[in-house]
Amino acid sequence: MKFSLLSTDQKARRGELQLARGTVATPAFMPVGTSGTVKALSPEEVRQTGADILLGNTFHLMIQPGTEVIDLHNGLHGFMNWHRPILTDSGGFQVWSLQDLRRLEEKGVTFRSPLDGRQIFMGPEESMSIQSALDSDIVMTFDECTHYPVTHEQAADSMQRSVRWASRCVESYHGNGTLFGIVQGGVFEELRIQSLEQTMEIGFKGYALGGLSVGEPKEDMLRILSEIAHRMPADCPRYLMGVGTPSDLVNGVRHGIDMFDCVLPTRNARNGWLYTQKGIVKIKHNRYRLDSKPLDSQCGCYTCTHYSRSYLRHLFQKNEILGLRLCSLHNLHYYQNLMKRIRNAIESRTFEDFADSFHEDYPKN
Amino acid sequence: MKFSLLSTDQKARRGELQLARGTVATPAFMPVGTSGTVKALSPEEVRQTGADILLGNTFHLMIQPGTEVIDLHNGLHGFMNWHRPILTDSGGFQVWSLQDLRRLEEKGVTFRSPLDGRQIFMGPEESMSIQSALDSDIVMTFDECTHYPVTHEQAADSMQRSVRWASRCVESYHGNGTLFGIVQGGVFEELRIQSLEQTMEIGFKGYALGGLSVGEPKEDMLRILSEIAHRMPADCPRYLMGVGTPSDLVNGVRHGIDMFDCVLPTRNARNGWLYTQKGIVKIKHNRYRLDSKPLDSQCGCYTCTHYSRSYLRHLFQKNEILGLRLCSLHNLHYYQNLMKRIRNAIESRTFEDFADSFHEDYPKN
Repeated sequence: MKFSLLSTDQKARRGELQLARGTVATPAFMPVGTSGTVKALSPEEVRQTGADILLGNTFHLMIQPGTEVIDLHNGLHGFMNWHRPILTDSGGFQVWSLQDLRRLEEKGVTFRSPLDGRQIFMGPEESMSIQSALDSDIVMTFDECTHYPVTHEQAADSMQRSVRWASRCVESYHGNGTLFGIVQGGVFEELRIQSLEQTMEIGFKGYALGGLSVGEPKEDMLRILSEIAHRMPADCPRYLMGVGTPSDLVNGVRHGIDMFDCVLPTRNARNGWLYTQKGIVKIKHNRYRLDSKPLDSQCGCYTCTHYSRSYLRHLFQKNEILGLRLCSLHNLHYYQNLMKRIRNAIESRTFEDFADSFHEDYPKN
Repeated sequence: MKFSLLSTDQKARRGELQLARGTVATPAFMPVGTSGTVKALSPEEVRQTGADILLGNTFHLMIQPGTEVIDLHNGLHGFMNWHRPILTDSGGFQVWSLQDLRRLEEKGVTFRSPLDGRQIFMGPEESMSIQSALDSDIVMTFDECTHYPVTHEQAADSMQRSVRWASRCVESYHGNGTLFGIVQGGVFEELRIQSLEQTMEIGFKGYALGGLSVGEPKEDMLRILSEIAHRMPADCPRYLMGVGTPSDLVNGVRHGIDMFDCVLPTRNARNGWLYTQKGIVKIKHNRYRLDSKPLDSQCGCYTCTHYSRSYLRHLFQKNEILGLRLCSLHNLHYYQNLMKRIRNAIESRTFEDFADSFHEDYPKN
């Protein structure tokens, strides 16, 4: 993996991530392909929206179909027919989300499979082994995501365990991908700084901010982002995990973030919440019944150039699969187009203007 | 509309149906786009499977989104982004299926909307008016589908009403499409012959066999088909409505049928029943968990050239939309490819051999 900065505009960075399976223009948004598919879309369609890289979920793929099946296809790329870069999370976040269904120890986490209740153990070594089987291009360390709210002491303990686990990941990973470290520490700045320092000491080629957007107030996320992002190594890609809304992306880039992933565009699409230049359109609403205009007249995606709001609403009324497809395609196109506009603004050193006018025009969400 | 016979092989016919919006190679299979979409597929994908013409359902479209919405898009083609020919049924079959929820009189049928319970009246004139609003290329007369089983007297009464309604359709239809007459009469040959004669007397540019595959034994359908199809005007297209399985299509062509429609390929696809050269594959079965072969190694469709059985099974296990898409695409491709093989066999005057070997190789379904 090679990361190059092409231009900067204050803290915002325009870069390029070269990986064996393709180049990723940054700042980049990674669509989420939870179970070996970006929901409702074909890999070719995802690519057409402008995505250079996908995110796959280690936890979900381990449960179903299991590594034996993925191995048979020589990794996730062949299995799902996406031959460009894939970043996989470590499974840590999903295991952590199981809450009362898991037992956490220093060696790792024991939990019951949500599929069949069988007991599964996952620690740093297991996560690395699964991500090797997936043949991920970017591999995330197995971490513990800190809850919100927690005491300073709990956050510190959790963060320290993530650091110790990160070392074990480095020792045990022998795949073809590039390992990224994850900075934890909850909403406590000095814990975040400590986590960053210790993670940098271990040494990674990329660094992520984890444990944000997990229930804390938006101001806390922005505070941590503004305090920590710019301290992350400038010559490495910086990845804000699981975030976020269009305005979160603009804010993230403003603070120096290079990579994002989030289920919002595809999940919202399936609920009929559609992103447009003028804010969110809730397409199921009766007001669109006789609206023959495209969803977003400024959008060049397949959906906006071939169908009316009235038709999209009809498809939702009838629970037609094509509705989920057309809306997922549009929302991902919106996100990728936003990233393109962000990259252009950084290149032309007009990012601050772009960000200001974006926040002015775009309704809060 | 212009219909030309290009070649024949015994009763089987290879023809061409020229319509303002495009030419249809016959024998043709029409995918069903019930509510303004062939379920799970885009119009471009449907076209790529080889379809020249779609079927739309007047009843479903009248209920939702209603003609006001379709009018706004200047017809069904613009609404659903399919700019080739569309045949619409009359709504008669669906109204008839409502059974106890409708009241049948000479003027037409009064029924309650399955959507909101409001009372709706539909007779020949209403059906013609809706099909005009849809701007259908081929318009079906509003008929009464004869139940199975019924007495000879009931079948005769029902058939005679359909004939009277057919005359009213001719009088009231003033759209741009071509009107087809429908032969009824249940499983009674002489009623079928009588219906055909009276329908021909009214005079249509195309003739359909209706009221088959409605619960009668397969032998009865084949008997009516073999007795009636070849008596239908040779210079007009012959359409067997709502039929059927792959072997039904081969049998239909053998008796001189030119057009078919059926929900089987798409409905079965969504249930994981997939057509292959070697019969039906039930893809959800555990035996395909570690099967890295394509669904049908002889098939050239997108699904078979890009994905494994193991992946398709995984998508069904996870209820992923992409699974419904890939399997719908494959099944329609199978049907269209079957029609292509049928057309080639007629052209080379080897249809009987083709039909025999098809029935030998293909498992009963």
